[in-house]
Amino acid sequence: MFFEGAEKKAEIQIHSGKLSLLSVEEAVWQSLIDKCNAKILSSVRSDTCTAYLLSESSLFVWADRILLITCGETTLVNSVEFFVNHFGAELIKQVVYQRKNEYDSRAQPSGFNDDARLLNKILPGKAYRFGNLDTHYNFIYHYENEFIHDENDKTYELLAYQISEQASEYLSRTDLTADDIRGFLRLDELVPGFDIDDFVFEPFGYSMNAVKGSDYLTIHITPQFGSSYVSFEANIDLLERASIILDVLAPNSFDVLTYNEFEFVQKIKQHIPTEFVPMCKVAEKLSNGYLVKFVNYVRPSEEFSSPVPLTIAGDDHAF
Amino acid sequence: MFFEGAEKKAEIQIHSGKLSLLSVEEAVWQSLIDKCNAKILSSVRSDTCTAYLLSESSLFVWADRILLITCGETTLVNSVEFFVNHFGAELIKQVVYQRKNEYDSRAQPSGFNDDARLLNKILPGKAYRFGNLDTHYNFIYHYENEFIHDENDKTYELLAYQISEQASEYLSRTDLTADDIRGFLRLDELVPGFDIDDFVFEPFGYSMNAVKGSDYLTIHITPQFGSSYVSFEANIDLLERASIILDVLAPNSFDVLTYNEFEFVQKIKQHIPTEFVPMCKVAEKLSNGYLVKFVNYVRPSEEFSSPVPLTIAGDDHAF
Repeated sequence: MFFEGAEKKAEIQIHSGKLSLLSVEEAVWQSLIDKCNAKILSSVRSDTCTAYLLSESSLFVWADRILLITCGETTLVNSVEFFVNHFGAELIKQVVYQRKNEYDSRAQPSGFNDDARLLNKILPGKAYRFGNLDTHYNFIYHYENEFIHDENDKTYELLAYQISEQASEYLSRTDLTADDIRGFLRLDELVPGFDIDDFVFEPFGYSMNAVKGSDYLTIHITPQFGSSYVSFEANIDLLERASIILDVLAPNSFDVLTYNEFEFVQKIKQHIPTEFVPMCKVAEKLSNGYLVKFVNYVRPSEEFSSPVPLTIAGDDHAF
Repeated sequence: MFFEGAEKKAEIQIHSGKLSLLSVEEAVWQSLIDKCNAKILSSVRSDTCTAYLLSESSLFVWADRILLITCGETTLVNSVEFFVNHFGAELIKQVVYQRKNEYDSRAQPSGFNDDARLLNKILPGKAYRFGNLDTHYNFIYHYENEFIHDENDKTYELLAYQISEQASEYLSRTDLTADDIRGFLRLDELVPGFDIDDFVFEPFGYSMNAVKGSDYLTIHITPQFGSSYVSFEANIDLLERASIILDVLAPNSFDVLTYNEFEFVQKIKQHIPTEFVPMCKVAEKLSNGYLVKFVNYVRPSEEFSSPVPLTIAGDDHAF
């Protein structure tokens, strides 16, 4: 059973003082989520943030911004379009839209170029590719305006591929509770004191939002062996937490992507184990001011494995 | 300008003694090539092999087999279907159909699973994936029958990605002659004494077939920086020639795939420079008897590069 874990992501910031997004009624977020073909499962609140757990990933709402992350075959760009139409383009301070390489891009309703063309009509901007086209990469689009970014506005992503057979097997069990998975992920060490909202999917798969004040961490797990993918996205420092994550999942490959982490080089030196080698490093100060750094790490392998036998019959993906 | 260099490939063997494929009239090959939406550009002949250079890669014809390799948005599987319909399934001794990861699979008329389902109806068989789904891989399908393979039937592929900026720049020049490219590729060392048939595409891009008796080498170059791809496919030993190829192209990543190379491990140790590290190794004796080995190599990189700026307007791929 294949599921596309790779995410699309949009952060929309609004001009402050005109409206608090925290006071927007939930029906609006329902409509926004409808537009990308996901569903709200549950939510958790801090005093400054509401985090919705979705059928495909997460929505975070703060007074002056939202962060929407969706996987599967969702059409996140349509939610961005809805937001702009609903609140008006003049309220929009900045939008960053991001989309990473998919396992099966043929199954996607749109490609990044389609999405970028749509965005460019409503919020003219610039687009970049971070990473090599034949392996892992992230497309990034941002609204090009007089935006002045906040240097303290940091985000971190750690995206793990080909997690260890042990981790894949454990996380693919169909009898796990949310508590089992929290324990396996060592959430008590990763986000001590955070409020946690999580969901175990049938037959497996896991999503989690953790919030504390305006801080967040979200984790989404597609555990199946052969196409496993686990994403960590946060505004708390994931480089400092990388050794725990890599210890738990033991992936053969992972990406790190940060916004405004100015000590990136020192931190990766300190926190990424030397068994992983970087095969692609990209850095750029975007014209909206954000400093973006991306590294794709791989673990060299000397062992021969067997190929994956494929199922031909049926309509399922022959992966 | 983006072009999909990644190839599909089919080798079809027929029962010997009933028909020599060398005596089949060219109109049949024209029809076969029509079916996948390619065109014959030119040909070169030895006493045992006719090699056609195509608008999208190559067709080789021997008395008892054909090898068809096509790139771009061709539908090679339809040529296999044509062959089976034209000559009859009872003539077919073996078919191996192979398809590698594409840069832009969304642009492809079919996915490997579609192709495998079509083949499975006319020549029931088995399918495998060699390589990790998030980086480089090859799907392989083969006809499952009482076929007994010939241990001397060896093939070699060396597939280079992200060739050096220098190689990419040189090969993307629009003033190169075939002779310039032959010299750049050091064909005199790779295939001394072979008859060569080659074509320089507009504005750039290069295809070459070399034959000598029943031996062949075919090279296809998509040089553009950011999505470069150069394939070498032969029944002569490409592992022994790997150091020349890697020296010329200096790729950041490449794959080696062999059929029936029983000294694979010793040869890669001897011929692959240690600056490249293996990140995925797969080996299997297929149930049709062929021993297939696949390795994906990467060159670790400590340097930060800039992201690729993307063009949003127009219908072109935003790569």
